[in-house]
Amino acid sequence: MKDEKALVILSGGQDSTTCLYWALKEYKEVEAITFDYGQMHRNEIVSASKICSMVKVPHEIVFIEGTLIGGTLLDKPVEGRGENIAPSWVPLRNALFLTIASNRAIVKGVKTLVIGVNSRDYSGYPDCRISFISAFEDMVFYGAEYPLLIEKPLINMTKKDIVLFAKGLLGCWEALAYTLTCYKGEYPPCGECAACKIRAKGFKEAGFPDPLIERSKNE
Amino acid sequence: MKDEKALVILSGGQDSTTCLYWALKEYKEVEAITFDYGQMHRNEIVSASKICSMVKVPHEIVFIEGTLIGGTLLDKPVEGRGENIAPSWVPLRNALFLTIASNRAIVKGVKTLVIGVNSRDYSGYPDCRISFISAFEDMVFYGAEYPLLIEKPLINMTKKDIVLFAKGLLGCWEALAYTLTCYKGEYPPCGECAACKIRAKGFKEAGFPDPLIERSKNE
Repeated sequence: MKDEKALVILSGGQDSTTCLYWALKEYKEVEAITFDYGQMHRNEIVSASKICSMVKVPHEIVFIEGTLIGGTLLDKPVEGRGENIAPSWVPLRNALFLTIASNRAIVKGVKTLVIGVNSRDYSGYPDCRISFISAFEDMVFYGAEYPLLIEKPLINMTKKDIVLFAKGLLGCWEALAYTLTCYKGEYPPCGECAACKIRAKGFKEAGFPDPLIERSKNE
Repeated sequence: MKDEKALVILSGGQDSTTCLYWALKEYKEVEAITFDYGQMHRNEIVSASKICSMVKVPHEIVFIEGTLIGGTLLDKPVEGRGENIAPSWVPLRNALFLTIASNRAIVKGVKTLVIGVNSRDYSGYPDCRISFISAFEDMVFYGAEYPLLIEKPLINMTKKDIVLFAKGLLGCWEALAYTLTCYKGEYPPCGECAACKIRAKGFKEAGFPDPLIERSKNE
């Protein structure tokens, strides 16, 4: 365990919650930051708060005006935008989140951010890849003279790998019962949106029932 | 002149106004973006609007919640923060502005941003240097698969150079009469704050009276 503090970017979903528990194992002190940017599935924020309370992690929720950053190819196709980019991708939204989180880290003297990005099943989000995270670290280094490390423990894992990884992290499995993945923000999860299906596939391949589904059956 | 559009980050001060007029000379189409982030000298924003009206440049003013990014060494010294950094510097504020401006550029298909940063008289702002701007361009390239160019025409100029440069740009001299530099946001400018003194020195060394001062004498 490192005798340092880490700041985890926590959405309240499966991946970032797994990262939080990884950080609790790896770092002496952990804090979390969540962005309220008008996401459709705003119950994520409730999940993030609940999970932080469970592990007594200090938690900042940052409100971001919906107009601050936006625009997708769904709104208007743009010439020159990469052909492999998902139509729902918002240009530089991850950069915005990382910039604000890095500001907090620098102000507090925290040297490590943790983010749950994953590029294994590349689905058209260029800012979920190692090359972007490395370039972001460089930008902070030159722009703030600050050696910030951005940890991304899930970057190369499949959804199955992430489930098995969570199984090995003390307390994480129980916390997954309170995460929110469903695009519709429903509990019990709708089971039909793309996010629900990808999550279900990961648990099925890993051979374990999803604690979230188990909880919804028992309540 | 390039048959392209450029987006200018315009504060309403002398440097960014000079950049706006440079862009009007260099690019077929020009737009401007200004950030309202609770700056003390908020009259800057009025100056920016006035100048954009003078040249009929489309102008977006983006409101940024004051709590979104903050923290200076004046609030609390932090171990590990570069020793050459100015106490008043806000970590990654320029990165935040550039991220939002880059988002706008990508959404509109604009390939060039223009910013009035200047590192000649390095005064403890690491995010006013070429190394930062280059790292930021790389971050956008990897994070958005977008080849954004960030032009910084004043980067190596002295304040005297900037005055002489403005003198050669059609219409710029007249516009400088409406810029705001004074930290106190006063018109006529207080003449006593650090910003007023640096501005006055540049005009004095260039051998021309400041159009802003001339205007205030004549009104």
